[in-house]
Amino acid sequence: MLKVGIIGAGRIGKVHGESISKYVKNAEVKAIADVFLNEATINWAREIGIQGVYKDYKKILEDPEIDAILICSSTDTHSKISIEAIRAGKHVFCEKPIDHDLARIKEVIDELNKSKVKYQVGFNRRYDHNFKAIRNAVVEGKIGEPHVLKITSRDPEPPSIDYVKVSGGIFLDMTIHDFDMARYLLGSDVVEVYAAGNVLVDNAIGEAGDIDTAIITLKMANGAMAVIDNSRQSSYGYDQRAEVFGSLGQVSVGNDSISKAVISTKDGVTSEKPLFFFLERYMQAYADEITEFIDAIVNNRDISVSADDGLKAVLIGEAATKSLKENRPVRISEIIY
Amino acid sequence: MLKVGIIGAGRIGKVHGESISKYVKNAEVKAIADVFLNEATINWAREIGIQGVYKDYKKILEDPEIDAILICSSTDTHSKISIEAIRAGKHVFCEKPIDHDLARIKEVIDELNKSKVKYQVGFNRRYDHNFKAIRNAVVEGKIGEPHVLKITSRDPEPPSIDYVKVSGGIFLDMTIHDFDMARYLLGSDVVEVYAAGNVLVDNAIGEAGDIDTAIITLKMANGAMAVIDNSRQSSYGYDQRAEVFGSLGQVSVGNDSISKAVISTKDGVTSEKPLFFFLERYMQAYADEITEFIDAIVNNRDISVSADDGLKAVLIGEAATKSLKENRPVRISEIIY
Amino acid sequence: MLKVGIIGAGRIGKVHGESISKYVKNAEVKAIADVFLNEATINWAREIGIQGVYKDYKKILEDPEIDAILICSSTDTHSKISIEAIRAGKHVFCEKPIDHDLARIKEVIDELNKSKVKYQVGFNRRYDHNFKAIRNAVVEGKIGEPHVLKITSRDPEPPSIDYVKVSGGIFLDMTIHDFDMARYLLGSDVVEVYAAGNVLVDNAIGEAGDIDTAIITLKMANGAMAVIDNSRQSSYGYDQRAEVFGSLGQVSVGNDSISKAVISTKDGVTSEKPLFFFLERYMQAYADEITEFIDAIVNNRDISVSADDGLKAVLIGEAATKSLKENRPVRISEIIY
Amino acid sequence: MLKVGIIGAGRIGKVHGESISKYVKNAEVKAIADVFLNEATINWAREIGIQGVYKDYKKILEDPEIDAILICSSTDTHSKISIEAIRAGKHVFCEKPIDHDLARIKEVIDELNKSKVKYQVGFNRRYDHNFKAIRNAVVEGKIGEPHVLKITSRDPEPPSIDYVKVSGGIFLDMTIHDFDMARYLLGSDVVEVYAAGNVLVDNAIGEAGDIDTAIITLKMANGAMAVIDNSRQSSYGYDQRAEVFGSLGQVSVGNDSISKAVISTKDGVTSEKPLFFFLERYMQAYADEITEFIDAIVNNRDISVSADDGLKAVLIGEAATKSLKENRPVRISEIIY
Repeated sequence: MLKVGIIGAGRIGKVHGESISKYVKNAEVKAIADVFLNEATINWAREIGIQGVYKDYKKILEDPEIDAILICSSTDTHSKISIEAIRAGKHVFCEKPIDHDLARIKEVIDELNKSKVKYQVGFNRRYDHNFKAIRNAVVEGKIGEPHVLKITSRDPEPPSIDYVKVSGGIFLDMTIHDFDMARYLLGSDVVEVYAAGNVLVDNAIGEAGDIDTAIITLKMANGAMAVIDNSRQSSYGYDQRAEVFGSLGQVSVGNDSISKAVISTKDGVTSEKPLFFFLERYMQAYADEITEFIDAIVNNRDISVSADDGLKAVLIGEAATKSLKENRPVRISEIIY
Repeated sequence: MLKVGIIGAGRIGKVHGESISKYVKNAEVKAIADVFLNEATINWAREIGIQGVYKDYKKILEDPEIDAILICSSTDTHSKISIEAIRAGKHVFCEKPIDHDLARIKEVIDELNKSKVKYQVGFNRRYDHNFKAIRNAVVEGKIGEPHVLKITSRDPEPPSIDYVKVSGGIFLDMTIHDFDMARYLLGSDVVEVYAAGNVLVDNAIGEAGDIDTAIITLKMANGAMAVIDNSRQSSYGYDQRAEVFGSLGQVSVGNDSISKAVISTKDGVTSEKPLFFFLERYMQAYADEITEFIDAIVNNRDISVSADDGLKAVLIGEAATKSLKENRPVRISEIIY
Repeated sequence: MLKVGIIGAGRIGKVHGESISKYVKNAEVKAIADVFLNEATINWAREIGIQGVYKDYKKILEDPEIDAILICSSTDTHSKISIEAIRAGKHVFCEKPIDHDLARIKEVIDELNKSKVKYQVGFNRRYDHNFKAIRNAVVEGKIGEPHVLKITSRDPEPPSIDYVKVSGGIFLDMTIHDFDMARYLLGSDVVEVYAAGNVLVDNAIGEAGDIDTAIITLKMANGAMAVIDNSRQSSYGYDQRAEVFGSLGQVSVGNDSISKAVISTKDGVTSEKPLFFFLERYMQAYADEITEFIDAIVNNRDISVSADDGLKAVLIGEAATKSLKENRPVRISEIIY
Repeated sequence: MLKVGIIGAGRIGKVHGESISKYVKNAEVKAIADVFLNEATINWAREIGIQGVYKDYKKILEDPEIDAILICSSTDTHSKISIEAIRAGKHVFCEKPIDHDLARIKEVIDELNKSKVKYQVGFNRRYDHNFKAIRNAVVEGKIGEPHVLKITSRDPEPPSIDYVKVSGGIFLDMTIHDFDMARYLLGSDVVEVYAAGNVLVDNAIGEAGDIDTAIITLKMANGAMAVIDNSRQSSYGYDQRAEVFGSLGQVSVGNDSISKAVISTKDGVTSEKPLFFFLERYMQAYADEITEFIDAIVNNRDISVSADDGLKAVLIGEAATKSLKENRPVRISEIIY
């Protein structure tokens, strides 16, 4: 029975804790740490049978019984705790992004190269049943050589302006998932990025130095191209679609909804909206990524979403940020770190 | 250039007249007759280039230049004019039903057997692109042996109570199309009918001696079964669907609409209603049935919807009427004529 | 913490055991009994933390700590164990049907009337997200007064011929779910049944005295009608659809599939088949029905699927069986018990 | 009765000729001219009742009875004949593009400014039922302020290499329709273009100096953005979709197909491919644009697709061509003519 520690007991830390307790037979959460520890978290931990509940995450790193940790704390702590955990010989699952600073990500990778621990980055969408279906169709050659990928990724509502200010910008906070998805679905690296963006949802986002609507074009190493469109606010819910067009055909996926009910009246034929947001849409994907992480440790398998994947998504994000600022296509090779 | 005469200048007579003038290269409408001839009809005829406009349909039957007639007058005149037209050596296209009285239909068929004219019954739905697609899938063996056919056929609004009183009842007026469709899609004859019905839309329909909602089960000669559900009033428009389930799969068709637009808002994901009624849904089918009729004459091909098909649909309707009245399954062989 | 005992460790007994351990916070499975107890079951029980594993279900009934039992054994034991459990003061969740013999069901109900225990019947489909969405639309008046219900229910493959011989026939084994669904979706009782059926899938089913394809028409107390079509073998998987048509509109639900992927090639536009069978399609529904059962006990709420519902579904099944045999509509009131 | 002359009897000239003869009540085609006049064209003209059939289009311009001409000849003749026709006082319908040379388009517009004739450019997609439905939803405010437009436009097969060499490049030949569509659907002008492209379909296209796959980003004057993706070869047929996302929702349209048939088998759930190419998809749109052109003349209404629209689409095409070549966003204002 693998013992796991969770650092950060926010929304996503709790999701992972519950996933392990429900779905992962060969692991248990032994301890959780949160710098803002409160009553609710303590009760929650007790209910699902977590023994250790700490303010200081170091207690988890120091526990020799704990084999693996999940880093679910705020972004600015990811790389620091990653390095400490690797040094402590713990396997690490780290929420995205590893860091906004590419040099810091490089340090994590350097530390990993000296170690034998496994390290997985939380690109949960790779585990989504719909996106996996696209990936499978591409890998199995059902659409031939991929030519064009289209990703639509729209949040139902913008984050708070306070968060916008520290998020690193839309490309590092939100589009980063789509950048990883482009690499995953096309099986190739990005070589050039052009980002167009505007503030159309909320002027306060613009005043905080960010945009809320974007169209990003990617040129891939294999000659394929990708286009991502983002919005911070979709009135009809979380819109998460993708489509790959290739020499022999096209594969696309739409959104999930609560039911398949279709109501026809004099006003039209109406079906349900997409599931509201990431917790609803990706609940099973979160469970599956943690299950794979534990399985990779227990059965010594390869991790499919590596620190290098984490680095590359941030690199693309940096290039997109630079492209938007300078209004020109930016090559990934221009980003120095 | 085949010369055609139209008897009856109501809605459907005009539809056929326009179809011939637009789509049928080797035919022209030479004359039209209507017992209630009015200014509007005269103008309409002039506009599309019809020379003869009469009150008395006999003038059409007497015109030696006219090779073919379309009987689009009221149902009670169909069999009489059919017989006169056959005797006059005209090819006949007759709107459904040939007659409510089976013996009268038999007389038409007897007359046909003595003649060489072609006779087509207006089961327009056989020419609908969607129902043809089902038929093709069945014939091509894509779903294996057919086991179960489901037809949903709902009108957007009931006819007038005056019409209900003379319509022959829902089974002879409305379901007759579905009875023919069952024979067409399953490629087999009906041997037994069970009809359940109720008055749920409008009590006045019940007071006029009819029902407005029905579920009819058919047993076919080849062992397959069919079920038809009808309503005289569908709030969302003309609902015309069918599905055949077989040993290897299933084929189904939905409704057509004006466009494929889908609007997603906070209230749901809404697409368009079905086309309103038969003129909208089956416009192309009407053109295609007339084109085939003319083609069968000009190129001496077989007619695909014969007087016998017309007879059989009425037979099933009679059996359904008897079944509803006696609340028991009725075999087609019980209907004597 | 409510203690639960499971009687019968077959497929469905295990499904419920796992649901309780994963999703039900205020209950735990204390013991399981199976007359054919084997190694695999013992290991499975150990893994999810069940203490007692017995051959003899009486040990569960005698355990004073156990408050509630789930009857998942073979159908012929349901009513007997139900009565024993009620007498032992245990709350009972019983898989459908309670018994093939209406008099035996009556005895269970009589016993319940003398007791205060809660009793739920396993009509899992009432908890399916899709069927609930239909029910909600009907209850909320979105389609007005319901007129016609259509249920399509097709299994991917027939049961073994050995099972067919003891199943009570297709109407008591398979259609029973659809009979309950008709009552649930239309909010009314069945008053008359007409069943048409045939052997189209496998002659061996006919030789065992059953049919494999059926169309059943139901007349409801409120004037609405329903039609159910069944097949024991659907080549494309478990087909579970329903549609309610009413005075203001229509609500329908289709099937669930593994993903929303749609692949377009020169051969057509292809999406995924329905989920294979009941374990795949109704997994969440099974969890939800057990969760509601436990919740009803713990919080003393009403049970929404009662023994009376179990009785009525069998009554309709008996009427359907009689209807098929005598080829005539049969009123529920004709079934004496 | 308005008399029309058609210049150019290729595929599209014949489409317009037949549309007028079938659908346009107040016009007739009096003459047609084609520099490559052949037997087939002469027979075709006779069949639909066209009196004059010439090699030399000037005979049409000189015919005082002819009020309006349709220019359906090769692109390099469009502007020249336009100017001659305007000078001859004929109303002009001109296929797109007016010219590849912006200065020549300017001359046409200058000539128009001195004249009172009506001039319509053949952007047929504006008349498509699906795109009109998007436009209506936007204009009626159903999706609020438009933020992002996505157009997918893929041909089923590339043109001949000979045509590629004289086509003016993919942006002027193919994407020009999408550029016009962006202006039409968003109700705003383009201010900047970024085009990414590659040769992925056929190297011969690259050798001819063109690309076959493109992603083009447009910034609009009103702040909205648009993205177009093109391919010269879609294995599953003509892919013509669009979607507008706005502050209150989203409207999208898919492709049309021959029927709504859906076949479910063990291999999946398969529906029909999109209609093959522009003649199939836009047949009704071609009829509607000509009907509107004739109506604008007869009833002196405004033309909705003007020479200015023709100019602007070419301007965007020129900017896209420059953007691809220089790999940078190009402002429309940079294009001098």
